[in-house]
Amino acid sequence: MLPIALDAVGGDKSPGEIVAGARLAVEEMGVPVVLVGPPEVVGDTGGIELLAASEVVAMDEDPANAVRRKKDSSLNRAAEAVRDGKASAMVSAGNTGATMASALLRMGRLPGVLRPAIATPIPVPGSTPTVLLDAGANAECSPAMLVQFAQMGSEFARARFGFDTPRVGLLSIGEEDSKGTPLVKETNALLTAGAGVNFIGNVEGRDVVSDRVDVVVTDGFTGNVVLKALEGVVKTLFEAILAAFTSTEATQDASKVLLPALGPLIHDLDPDAIGGAMLLGVDGVCIISHGSSSARAIVNALAVARDMVDHDVVGHMRSAVAH
Amino acid sequence: MLPIALDAVGGDKSPGEIVAGARLAVEEMGVPVVLVGPPEVVGDTGGIELLAASEVVAMDEDPANAVRRKKDSSLNRAAEAVRDGKASAMVSAGNTGATMASALLRMGRLPGVLRPAIATPIPVPGSTPTVLLDAGANAECSPAMLVQFAQMGSEFARARFGFDTPRVGLLSIGEEDSKGTPLVKETNALLTAGAGVNFIGNVEGRDVVSDRVDVVVTDGFTGNVVLKALEGVVKTLFEAILAAFTSTEATQDASKVLLPALGPLIHDLDPDAIGGAMLLGVDGVCIISHGSSSARAIVNALAVARDMVDHDVVGHMRSAVAH
Repeated sequence: MLPIALDAVGGDKSPGEIVAGARLAVEEMGVPVVLVGPPEVVGDTGGIELLAASEVVAMDEDPANAVRRKKDSSLNRAAEAVRDGKASAMVSAGNTGATMASALLRMGRLPGVLRPAIATPIPVPGSTPTVLLDAGANAECSPAMLVQFAQMGSEFARARFGFDTPRVGLLSIGEEDSKGTPLVKETNALLTAGAGVNFIGNVEGRDVVSDRVDVVVTDGFTGNVVLKALEGVVKTLFEAILAAFTSTEATQDASKVLLPALGPLIHDLDPDAIGGAMLLGVDGVCIISHGSSSARAIVNALAVARDMVDHDVVGHMRSAVAH
Repeated sequence: MLPIALDAVGGDKSPGEIVAGARLAVEEMGVPVVLVGPPEVVGDTGGIELLAASEVVAMDEDPANAVRRKKDSSLNRAAEAVRDGKASAMVSAGNTGATMASALLRMGRLPGVLRPAIATPIPVPGSTPTVLLDAGANAECSPAMLVQFAQMGSEFARARFGFDTPRVGLLSIGEEDSKGTPLVKETNALLTAGAGVNFIGNVEGRDVVSDRVDVVVTDGFTGNVVLKALEGVVKTLFEAILAAFTSTEATQDASKVLLPALGPLIHDLDPDAIGGAMLLGVDGVCIISHGSSSARAIVNALAVARDMVDHDVVGHMRSAVAH
């Protein structure tokens, strides 16, 4: 397979953890990787090929400006490598907006796709993650966009988690078709009429973290708020639990017994274990890893990128949207 | 003080837990209570006064129909008692939509209020809860409505949690004023221009469960989805943790040491400990307790109702909206 273009200078822990992740992925999984970034910033790649790019987009930089002004950024170069058939996929833990803009402008949209969307796997303790989309690419959406999100999200969930016919739910404030905003009601009618997906109807906020539904479709405003609220409460809860576990010598001893039992849960909820979100609707595989990605997060993101290429998820999305 | 009208036949555990909660509140706190419902359904009130109402609104009944067709429902009678100066407040753990409709139609709106909103305290481990509104009364909102939610939410947070000048945040997908939907941008401009509240700008989903902000303002669609997602993940996590704690004899022994240390956290997150949400913008105190309220939840809801009456929060909201 063609190498995966990995943005070496994106993310809070770049380039150190990014390069370390690339090396681990090559060693452990034999995934071909090409790092992208300024050689003097990236430093020693440990023998991994480097695609030179002279500019770096900062984490807090305005995405639209960054993409236009920094023509030779690592993000633009990575997206161009995919477009030009020199890389099979791109992966970045950097500025999410700029990653989306580079992928959209350089790779282009799939035919018929109105707007790309970010699909984020939400961990569900003891079960397969739920795919939530749009997780923030489009603050405003139309019913036709949400229908495409349902179609693309289904293909992503199928390729990513092996669902045969993923159950697609529309996020609302009640299960009844009559509830929600005009956007929800119109989308519900379109999905009910038939869009080539296994639509199970409206779902509620609590269902996102349940095993009732596999793909949850919503606009990018609601999706982003829900995603960050969930991330926030999980972090807050684990900090509070850890504080209780370490509060006395007795609790520390007891926690030595309990932590192994909590291991699977902690692993399920570890952002580094998720493997990143995917930008759906562009003509290529673009994986977005979270900003504080460790080397392990990069390994998982590269593995997801490889799997999505292997499954030809982009080809399947192309067909699904044309439904 | 005038008695608090308590819907004896609303909630999954009514009338048993509701009546038990009323008796506890009278015994423990000396809160005057009048139960409302059909005498033959309520049964023995243990000496607490009963205001007879012949009809019961079911938990899943259509709210608008219920209020119009069941004129003599416990919810209508409770709201009328407040309107007619026979009760100081109403409390229900029943059908939320019907409770809102009864309160709105019988008590009426405060002068100038566009739409009432549900203000729900969200527990924040180790800190004071955050007031989230609108938690579901209005799927669609205008900027002017959100400004009033900020004003009313501030008064509620002040009375409920003793904040001097509550920090008000507007829920969005980034802290920058330029981010979000047109609704968010216009509301941000109005709140920045001055609305008599301590506006700290846009906040993100993660801030809802942090100590960065005291009142989070959003439309009722986003608010309801976030609220239910948070409730869902907390429930799921605690179930997973409990399963780990009880998985072996060794973990059960260890959990005996750890559970007391986790006590304050578990208490903070217990829905029965929160004391209920409040419908803001109607001309009277209306407390909405969650559907599965236990007697303890009812005691807490009655205590909140009493406090809101004592603080004249409705009078303060009347002034705040007229700002």
